[in-house]
Amino acid sequence: VEEQNDKDLEILLKEYHHADIAEIIDDLDLDDAVYVIKLLDSETTSEILMELDEDIREKILRNLSTKEIAEEVEELDTDDAADMISELPEDRQAEVISQIEDDEHREEIQELLAYDEDTAGGLMAKELVKVYETWTVAGCLRRIRGQAKDVTRVHSVYVVDKNDKLIGRLSLKDLIISKSDTKIADIAKDNVDWVHVDDDVEDVAKIMAKYDLEAIPVVNDNQTLVGRITIDDIIDVIREEADKDYQLAAGISQDVEADDSILKLTKARLPWLFIGMFGGLGAASIIEQFNDNMGNFIVLLSFVPLIQATAGNVGVQSSAIVVQGIANGTIDGKILKRLFKEFLLGLVNGVAISLVAILITHFIFGTPYIVSITISIALVAVIVMAAIIGTFIPIFLDKRGIDPAVATGPFITTSNDVFGILIYFLIAKLILGI
Amino acid sequence: VEEQNDKDLEILLKEYHHADIAEIIDDLDLDDAVYVIKLLDSETTSEILMELDEDIREKILRNLSTKEIAEEVEELDTDDAADMISELPEDRQAEVISQIEDDEHREEIQELLAYDEDTAGGLMAKELVKVYETWTVAGCLRRIRGQAKDVTRVHSVYVVDKNDKLIGRLSLKDLIISKSDTKIADIAKDNVDWVHVDDDVEDVAKIMAKYDLEAIPVVNDNQTLVGRITIDDIIDVIREEADKDYQLAAGISQDVEADDSILKLTKARLPWLFIGMFGGLGAASIIEQFNDNMGNFIVLLSFVPLIQATAGNVGVQSSAIVVQGIANGTIDGKILKRLFKEFLLGLVNGVAISLVAILITHFIFGTPYIVSITISIALVAVIVMAAIIGTFIPIFLDKRGIDPAVATGPFITTSNDVFGILIYFLIAKLILGI
Repeated sequence: VEEQNDKDLEILLKEYHHADIAEIIDDLDLDDAVYVIKLLDSETTSEILMELDEDIREKILRNLSTKEIAEEVEELDTDDAADMISELPEDRQAEVISQIEDDEHREEIQELLAYDEDTAGGLMAKELVKVYETWTVAGCLRRIRGQAKDVTRVHSVYVVDKNDKLIGRLSLKDLIISKSDTKIADIAKDNVDWVHVDDDVEDVAKIMAKYDLEAIPVVNDNQTLVGRITIDDIIDVIREEADKDYQLAAGISQDVEADDSILKLTKARLPWLFIGMFGGLGAASIIEQFNDNMGNFIVLLSFVPLIQATAGNVGVQSSAIVVQGIANGTIDGKILKRLFKEFLLGLVNGVAISLVAILITHFIFGTPYIVSITISIALVAVIVMAAIIGTFIPIFLDKRGIDPAVATGPFITTSNDVFGILIYFLIAKLILGI
Repeated sequence: VEEQNDKDLEILLKEYHHADIAEIIDDLDLDDAVYVIKLLDSETTSEILMELDEDIREKILRNLSTKEIAEEVEELDTDDAADMISELPEDRQAEVISQIEDDEHREEIQELLAYDEDTAGGLMAKELVKVYETWTVAGCLRRIRGQAKDVTRVHSVYVVDKNDKLIGRLSLKDLIISKSDTKIADIAKDNVDWVHVDDDVEDVAKIMAKYDLEAIPVVNDNQTLVGRITIDDIIDVIREEADKDYQLAAGISQDVEADDSILKLTKARLPWLFIGMFGGLGAASIIEQFNDNMGNFIVLLSFVPLIQATAGNVGVQSSAIVVQGIANGTIDGKILKRLFKEFLLGLVNGVAISLVAILITHFIFGTPYIVSITISIALVAVIVMAAIIGTFIPIFLDKRGIDPAVATGPFITTSNDVFGILIYFLIAKLILGI
């Protein structure tokens, strides 16, 4: 394909949706990718660039002049434009901004760049359709024809007063089915949902999902309409959040993919392995404390993997349910009640597991009866402990304002490993006197 | 609040959005919830019911007559109506359907009930706005005013030929900004995306997210337009999918929440704990095979938790990245290349971990030099093995058409525990001759 046959290639690519071309470019090497981007017009390439993997986009932009980047930025909606610029090194950012020809577009992008990227302000676009309450339906439709050219998709029409304060909303459907001399103020719905520019994007996602909104207006401190957030951006937020929690639960720092370099993957994975390693070494030194070389000690030691696996599994199960409950907003404050429930749950699971364990170890493995009993009692205690730790830590972190998802995965497994083994040998010492 | 003061309560609740009322009802006991539902009119309660937790909705519906349920169903869009009916026991389903007064609504619901709930047909709604290619813009707007009353939100207007075959789409914006005598055929966009009724909902979600669609038309084998799927339903699909993967990774069967009963939670958690338990017992019997009561054997045993924790963590990391890559469609077929990369990655991580482990065990713990060396070599081998197993199993399952997410969590941890301990003692036997 890459035989530099410009015309054919251009015609071929014209047929595809920009999201498909982006997938093709993701797989090309850098030179070819830059070549294709330079070949196509900026209206197409700006959309393609936004669909690319962040790493690849960054590399391609490094090969474009600030002038060329400014041309791409001109074609993008303000929110995408601000995202693209914010990924550039600081010195190039100013250069690109100064080369944007459309004054209004430039000012809007600069406004958006001022917001934190995790806030509604950082996610919103300036493109929206707004009408004044004093207009009529006919006047409104006329003006919308003008405004709507800049807005890719019209979800809602926002109604503002003479000071640009948000006071209501209208759907295009409402406009179409109303008589043309109706006053906007009479058909506007005043129960409009909105978010503040400084609101956290995850909260915005929760509100939009809860009320099934496809777009939400954003206001500043004066209740002035400053932008809108659309559902496609929120889907990305939801996906990123889910991916992040999943990766944390698996002991991977966020933001890596299977195709990243070994160096990047190592950076994301090694820290968590060290946490596990220190836990393992901690367990080894606990075991050392109890070592008196008696016969039963080796039998007890051989069941350490059983204790450890159980403690780890229970801890992850408990913490995952709590973390998900917190993320979905279905968990409220009553810590003690929840810990008591986890205690009961641990007791039920613990008794079930230890009854089976006692049967298998004593009757199949031929483990001495007293050791089997010790293992079973320890299993109940360890399961209850792991369930309580797994529940308590995420709730505690959440109350302190820390993302509870960091408490899942290796963190909870490691602490439960160490505590579990300690409890196991303490119980063994009590019963067997080792 | 629940002093049966009907009028006050009704007025109070009128102020709230149905999603907020649903949250309140989720927290009420069953009698009060049924009382509130019976108090309000079916236009409000039908929306509230759809927002409730599935369990609670089921309980409330059990307390309503089929006549009352039919009234709720009348108010719902066809997709929600079909969902609500499908949750009823079989015998009540037919009764409710026969009591729906609106013939068209009843037939549409029956059509939707025939589709599998995991397909586009099971997710779509019959409510949509369609126009014929031969109409003019003016005629179109007139007809839309009629059709749009039944459609909560108009995303796109679908253009069909005289046989109801989907041939294009229009946005309301396009209609508004076109002259009134323009033929629909002239302004319709013919590059309309669509899905087939039998397509998997997860594929539909991928397509809609990739192309940033807010609604997608659904066609049958004849390319006839039979329904449409909107983005809010897709958000639920994405969330459920993410929740399911997360819970599988944590060793919880899907579909439980922190507030479920202890019995339900135990059912979801206990099977995975048994998997872990059998792994632990398997490890114990492996250890037994190597037991010869030598001095170094106890030292080796005390490092079993270290080996086990490391094998488990590496396995979960590897499998999580692969599972996520498969879910996002970023992983392709080259298994050997990927396994080789995991091998290198495991080698890098393994060497880093074991260098630190050798220093700590020998110089701080005073472990004999030869044992420290054994542990370190075993760590490298175990990490490489865990990385390869963690990568291979999800890819293998995916190729066989099994959801790779089941291979994460306790499944991968347990198999890596057992293999890890086996490798550890095999290496120890080779080096130390125990």
